[in-house]
Amino acid sequence: MTAFPLKVRAFAAHERHGSIEPWAFERRALRDGDIALDILFSGICHSDLHSVGGWGQEFPLVPGHEIVGRVTEIGAMVTRFAPGDMVMVGTIVDSCRTCAHCTIQMESYCQAYPTTTYDGVDQIDGSRTRGGYSSAYVADERFVHALPPGLDPAGAAPLVCAGITTFSPLRHWKVGPGSVVAVVGIGGLGHLGVKFARAMGAHVVAITTSADKVRSAFDLGAHEVVLSSDADAMAAQAWRFDLILDTVSQSHPLDGVLGALKLDGVLCSLGIPDAFDFNPVMLTLGRRSLSSSGVGGTSETREMLAFCAQHDIVADVEVIAPRDINTAFARLEAGDVRYRFVIDMAAD
Amino acid sequence: MTAFPLKVRAFAAHERHGSIEPWAFERRALRDGDIALDILFSGICHSDLHSVGGWGQEFPLVPGHEIVGRVTEIGAMVTRFAPGDMVMVGTIVDSCRTCAHCTIQMESYCQAYPTTTYDGVDQIDGSRTRGGYSSAYVADERFVHALPPGLDPAGAAPLVCAGITTFSPLRHWKVGPGSVVAVVGIGGLGHLGVKFARAMGAHVVAITTSADKVRSAFDLGAHEVVLSSDADAMAAQAWRFDLILDTVSQSHPLDGVLGALKLDGVLCSLGIPDAFDFNPVMLTLGRRSLSSSGVGGTSETREMLAFCAQHDIVADVEVIAPRDINTAFARLEAGDVRYRFVIDMAAD
Repeated sequence: MTAFPLKVRAFAAHERHGSIEPWAFERRALRDGDIALDILFSGICHSDLHSVGGWGQEFPLVPGHEIVGRVTEIGAMVTRFAPGDMVMVGTIVDSCRTCAHCTIQMESYCQAYPTTTYDGVDQIDGSRTRGGYSSAYVADERFVHALPPGLDPAGAAPLVCAGITTFSPLRHWKVGPGSVVAVVGIGGLGHLGVKFARAMGAHVVAITTSADKVRSAFDLGAHEVVLSSDADAMAAQAWRFDLILDTVSQSHPLDGVLGALKLDGVLCSLGIPDAFDFNPVMLTLGRRSLSSSGVGGTSETREMLAFCAQHDIVADVEVIAPRDINTAFARLEAGDVRYRFVIDMAAD
Repeated sequence: MTAFPLKVRAFAAHERHGSIEPWAFERRALRDGDIALDILFSGICHSDLHSVGGWGQEFPLVPGHEIVGRVTEIGAMVTRFAPGDMVMVGTIVDSCRTCAHCTIQMESYCQAYPTTTYDGVDQIDGSRTRGGYSSAYVADERFVHALPPGLDPAGAAPLVCAGITTFSPLRHWKVGPGSVVAVVGIGGLGHLGVKFARAMGAHVVAITTSADKVRSAFDLGAHEVVLSSDADAMAAQAWRFDLILDTVSQSHPLDGVLGALKLDGVLCSLGIPDAFDFNPVMLTLGRRSLSSSGVGGTSETREMLAFCAQHDIVADVEVIAPRDINTAFARLEAGDVRYRFVIDMAAD
């Protein structure tokens, strides 16, 4: 039996913009619906950088919402998991459960705003949630997912954030055979967007600023790769795409991207830039839409994981030790990762 | 028989930002597919102001793309009209006719850009098109519509611009019984948006900055009217609308408007402001879309006119004489019209 409160070894930012340093704290005792898990892998998401920076609410702040681990203990009412199971926790760990979106398992769009996996506020005891850069987690089983057998645990970790973030809009906008899809930005999100769109049967065009990513974009499954700096190649994309996933988090000119959409096409921006840079008439000319989407809810996350198991999709990851987190943050800031860092929590 | 070239009495801006003054010019001789019409009524659209200002390409410029008239002559190949018929001409009078959009009668989205009714360039002889502030027009019958019997000709004129601009997105986004729709801005476009949405069976909420438009918004068919200056009332609209038609042409804060959309709701902005003012995360939080749309194509315009005949819908208009055009422009600029000016071309 695990002893509670659970003493946890963690890695935290102790102040805003601070480096990530060792820390220790205690997880809550299990509630009836909770499971406890030992964390094996924890992905590093670009939003972790934002949280340690401007977004952070309370410090010390333990980032991490791409968690893979093994169940160690279950609460009295838990039905879906048993000790020893390999499981995952993504970006949210609770929601109001009663609004129109929660009742259809779209908890990520909870009208009362969901409880985030870290730096959120627990709805029962008001404590601050602390994330996956730690040795163990405690969560309600509703927000815990089974790791499908056969998927590499380290490569799977990013699926519950970067994966569902790209899978969800591709499903929502009904991408399939016959669809022509572009993915702008071939990074942590974009590389999974290319894999998913290809596996769904679409014709996939990767659009990148990086000449040195052309080869790997093809390897990921792109049918075509366009360098965004090539004005002629970009102009040739006019009226071409049903859906464009833009994964770039910096504000960048969108008129050419919008012009590449078909009539009624959708530009789904996933990077949440500070502002969108485009001329409004670009929407009018082709009845085009600019949209965005968050991570999917619990049922869609499970659908995504089943799809990954079926198509053998995981993220391309660089596994690091906890002592390398600060180096990884700096490299992530500089875009120097192919394509996602994952922390091996057991490494020295 | 009409004598060609057809001498036309017109009202034109003789220079950029110039006042509208009498002018005379000659219309082209009829081509085989053309009809000639005597213009009875010509609506004044807000874009006429823009055209006389920054948008204008060539002066003298004769505005007017909401035309109602009577056929006087037909070309040898004309099949749909006969002399004496009451007809309408809207915002475009030609297109490439061969692109993917033209072949499905979505000519307003022509990939080669359609020929506008005024200040466009004729695709055959390269001449500048001149609009409805004139005594007669000559156009290919493909872009001419029959005025449905029973509709007031003056009130009908704005239907082929303001009408189709609001009808088209309501149809495209499948508004009907059970839909909850908001119309922001109760002016030339918005008042028709309210009428159409109501006639389609939606629950309609008018959102206006003008306390003195509350009564008339109800009269137009709104089930509810919200003053945008009432912060509490606006906050109460959160997560409420399937579709919002924003008809405001000035850039204005959109975060509250976007927040009023349901999950997957669409904000269709019809005013083509200089820029959109919103925080990108507002799209992410509810997978909301910002879109726009132009006027519909020829088949949809006919569907709209049939709908108007069935539901007895015309614009609420203030009919003026040509000598009052400059006064009308100034009043339109100030938002002082309920809800559309239409010029009676036969008035002194």
